[in-house]
Amino acid sequence: MNDRQTPIERLVLIGVGLIGGSLARALKSAGAVGEVVGVARSRRTGERALALGVVDRFSTSAGDAVRGASVVVIATPVATFPAILDAISGGLADDAVVTDVGSVKRYVVDAVRKHLRAHSTRFVPGHPIAGTEQSGVDASFAELYRGRHVILTPLPDTDATATQLIANMWEVAGADVLQMDVDRHDRVLAATSHLPHVIAYALVRFLAEHPERETLFELAAGGFYDFTRIASSDPVMWRDICLTNGEPIVDALRGFRAGLDAFIRAIEEHDGETLERFFSQAKRARDAGLDAKNRRQNPV
Amino acid sequence: MNDRQTPIERLVLIGVGLIGGSLARALKSAGAVGEVVGVARSRRTGERALALGVVDRFSTSAGDAVRGASVVVIATPVATFPAILDAISGGLADDAVVTDVGSVKRYVVDAVRKHLRAHSTRFVPGHPIAGTEQSGVDASFAELYRGRHVILTPLPDTDATATQLIANMWEVAGADVLQMDVDRHDRVLAATSHLPHVIAYALVRFLAEHPERETLFELAAGGFYDFTRIASSDPVMWRDICLTNGEPIVDALRGFRAGLDAFIRAIEEHDGETLERFFSQAKRARDAGLDAKNRRQNPV
Repeated sequence: MNDRQTPIERLVLIGVGLIGGSLARALKSAGAVGEVVGVARSRRTGERALALGVVDRFSTSAGDAVRGASVVVIATPVATFPAILDAISGGLADDAVVTDVGSVKRYVVDAVRKHLRAHSTRFVPGHPIAGTEQSGVDASFAELYRGRHVILTPLPDTDATATQLIANMWEVAGADVLQMDVDRHDRVLAATSHLPHVIAYALVRFLAEHPERETLFELAAGGFYDFTRIASSDPVMWRDICLTNGEPIVDALRGFRAGLDAFIRAIEEHDGETLERFFSQAKRARDAGLDAKNRRQNPV
Repeated sequence: MNDRQTPIERLVLIGVGLIGGSLARALKSAGAVGEVVGVARSRRTGERALALGVVDRFSTSAGDAVRGASVVVIATPVATFPAILDAISGGLADDAVVTDVGSVKRYVVDAVRKHLRAHSTRFVPGHPIAGTEQSGVDASFAELYRGRHVILTPLPDTDATATQLIANMWEVAGADVLQMDVDRHDRVLAATSHLPHVIAYALVRFLAEHPERETLFELAAGGFYDFTRIASSDPVMWRDICLTNGEPIVDALRGFRAGLDAFIRAIEEHDGETLERFFSQAKRARDAGLDAKNRRQNPV
């Protein structure tokens, strides 16, 4: 918190990995949090987080840990949310604020309504657009969120002071906070993140199923491995994203496929003018997007 | 050349960019070449190559430059080949060996037959699988080909000593030389290189044509920009690759699209088992391919 805000007295972090761990580190280094309590499935992870100074103590029970929490951050895969919300709903103080970092939001909001019931107006759905190829608490670092976007998707009945508190928390961590409608979030992320991931996996799988697969992987240049780096993320996480954000992802896939068909037609028709236009449009759009992003993250 | 081979007396490099310039540097630093003559479209490029020591002299006329050449390397975009082959065919000494670095080979072989005529048996079609995001002679460096594959696609009537000479030349530059049938080369490269590039361009173009494009490019994370880095290559080069290797690229695109449809079906059917299998297969194949590649390029 900056000096206008009261620090968070007790932050309970359910899931002590890269995302949660980096948030705890950022808040601690800003002096914006009193105590951080970690909740880990295994004692080993909890002890590691303790040894690294990411948490001040830990528990393997979310239900126990949230008693007396000012803020609870759920930073586990979204498929675990129903069970976690059930476990914590009885123990939350009336004024406790709960938030999450899940990369799909409609599914989370529905789960919160069902499993957190009365407390759901103090749940602020959140999604930091940040990460690295690494995972786990050992990879966490306080600067992960600097200059990154965090999207909050409060509902009409979400408590406005709860939303403000979570927005402040992310700003202290260095992020740029946006608010967005739940379904718009899911459509936007389907296009910018879920679609590229599915495409990368589908491309690698196409080569892996090809009769000449050994030659293909041997002759694939560095560019291929860079291009498909995102296809080495966790398969279970991507299964769950596809299961929990299916419709927007399918819409994006169909839209992309229509564009691919236009390329196929232009190639079949030897239409050099259209091909050059397609390639140029894409290059210009990417270069412009990248320039804007660099200006935002490294202001002069 | 290693000590069993005679150095190349005079190498004529038509096109003094990253690819040609790096080859010249590698051969010079190995003492495997007498004189390097550059052919550049503009005096400015030629003078730059001279100033960098990449060439010993240069000409803006390919026809003049190739007189007295032992080896001619054509390292310009493949669309320029017919005119270049016409320009050089009259000036080549009988024993001169000609090769190229084009990323498609059937088109090149056809152009050589038509425009180089009698000398076409001393043309060795070649393709180094190497490059960087940079282009131009300023980006060239002697180590570019170390541990990289170079594919040669000699025809049944290609002079075997010519093929051997070009294979030796690339080996001196540090490359691992493979021989392959022309059409197999074009199919393999369509899958490992041309397909990923078209996909990356099509993905960026999908976002650029989206009603929410500004939000999409703003919220796209670093992973998106990494993933689509190959979509910032030269649009004209990619137009020409699509025009000169159309059928294999269309086949690859159709195969990829069939795999994408399988993803769409699995998502629509909420088929978590199939999704997890698809994602896992792809991750395993990519990880294994990358391991093998790293072992090959950094042997213990």
